[in-house]
Amino acid sequence: MTGLFFTFQEKGLIVEKMLLKVNSEESSQFIDITAGVSEAVRESGVINGLCHIFVPHTTAAVTINENADPNVEYDIIQTLNRLVPNDPAYRHMEGNSDAHAKSTLVGASQIVAINDGRLSLGTWQAIYFCEFDGPRTRKVWINIINAD
Amino acid sequence: MTGLFFTFQEKGLIVEKMLLKVNSEESSQFIDITAGVSEAVRESGVINGLCHIFVPHTTAAVTINENADPNVEYDIIQTLNRLVPNDPAYRHMEGNSDAHAKSTLVGASQIVAINDGRLSLGTWQAIYFCEFDGPRTRKVWINIINAD
Amino acid sequence: MTGLFFTFQEKGLIVEKMLLKVNSEESSQFIDITAGVSEAVRESGVINGLCHIFVPHTTAAVTINENADPNVEYDIIQTLNRLVPNDPAYRHMEGNSDAHAKSTLVGASQIVAINDGRLSLGTWQAIYFCEFDGPRTRKVWINIINAD
Repeated sequence: MTGLFFTFQEKGLIVEKMLLKVNSEESSQFIDITAGVSEAVRESGVINGLCHIFVPHTTAAVTINENADPNVEYDIIQTLNRLVPNDPAYRHMEGNSDAHAKSTLVGASQIVAINDGRLSLGTWQAIYFCEFDGPRTRKVWINIINAD
Repeated sequence: MTGLFFTFQEKGLIVEKMLLKVNSEESSQFIDITAGVSEAVRESGVINGLCHIFVPHTTAAVTINENADPNVEYDIIQTLNRLVPNDPAYRHMEGNSDAHAKSTLVGASQIVAINDGRLSLGTWQAIYFCEFDGPRTRKVWINIINAD
Repeated sequence: MTGLFFTFQEKGLIVEKMLLKVNSEESSQFIDITAGVSEAVRESGVINGLCHIFVPHTTAAVTINENADPNVEYDIIQTLNRLVPNDPAYRHMEGNSDAHAKSTLVGASQIVAINDGRLSLGTWQAIYFCEFDGPRTRKVWINIINAD
């Protein structure tokens, strides 16, 4: 995550869509965006609610996994590459069908609750943007529901 | 998607559950339901909120992926069939354990934000109902949270 | 699911985080937590809204699948173990990279709508806590958005 800016405005219960910019540097890469999402939650001032983290791309995804040993993310990427190799037999001519399939397997969004003004993540959890067809400049959209 | 009707009523913050009917024609098939979900959002009148798209079946799923080249969906289906073949060694006697496993891998629901009265999807994203044990008549449930 | 307690308090629109305790007894196990989640919904008194079921662990997950024949869950576990075996070649030294990968494939959370005071699940659907690195004592966090 090399850039971060928000364009939001409190309006009723929801905080307007916020934007997180992510620059990937490898073809497959997990990028920890927890700090950026947490900053968005802090800036929103929401104390209790839901945080929706959405990837508007079809060859990327978002997941929640271990924040301590980067080898975990390395192993998950290797597992995904083994399960869904970049196979020349795909029909789609752009040559990135593997990335589309990985996007569907991992998922385009995550919801994390906000309690006491903070993202309710487990001790060892971080939020990762998952690049499957990089390097690229990517976006993450954050919508926060204020439930107080 | 060959049928579409809504039974909803604005009530407090949430719009009542809406129903989208989907008829699949193949054993494995991705059906673009974006138009139906968008129509539900429009009819609800909600400007900012969350749209929950839920598949109440255990041998189907819902995903978000590319809307331009149908070969992408073909390649994803082939990938899922290769990873989880219809193997006679399964214990479940109905012979559709592969479809149940694919349902868990892809997921029973998606959440898409609503901003400015429209589904916040990326340029190349569409919402697909994923049939894994068709052909069948299926339902999709849509719940919309109004956050203004 | 061998233990269950709630610590919640109605506060504005959201019901405070509720806690469900789950004790797994096998290395890989699907545990039906639908009764616990339904009880949380009932206790909350929420009539229409969303129920967020979140697993704060990185070697577990939550899914929705068939509630009738336990062989379905057996077959899904076997499928996941075949796709992501406990391979000594992983880099992560704790020896549970397979569990982390399965967590990302299945997902850390599910959202189920609440309509008419009840979880809106399909006839054959149940909510399963997915243990991939047990046996362990685990937690499930439940956040309920009241949308009336």
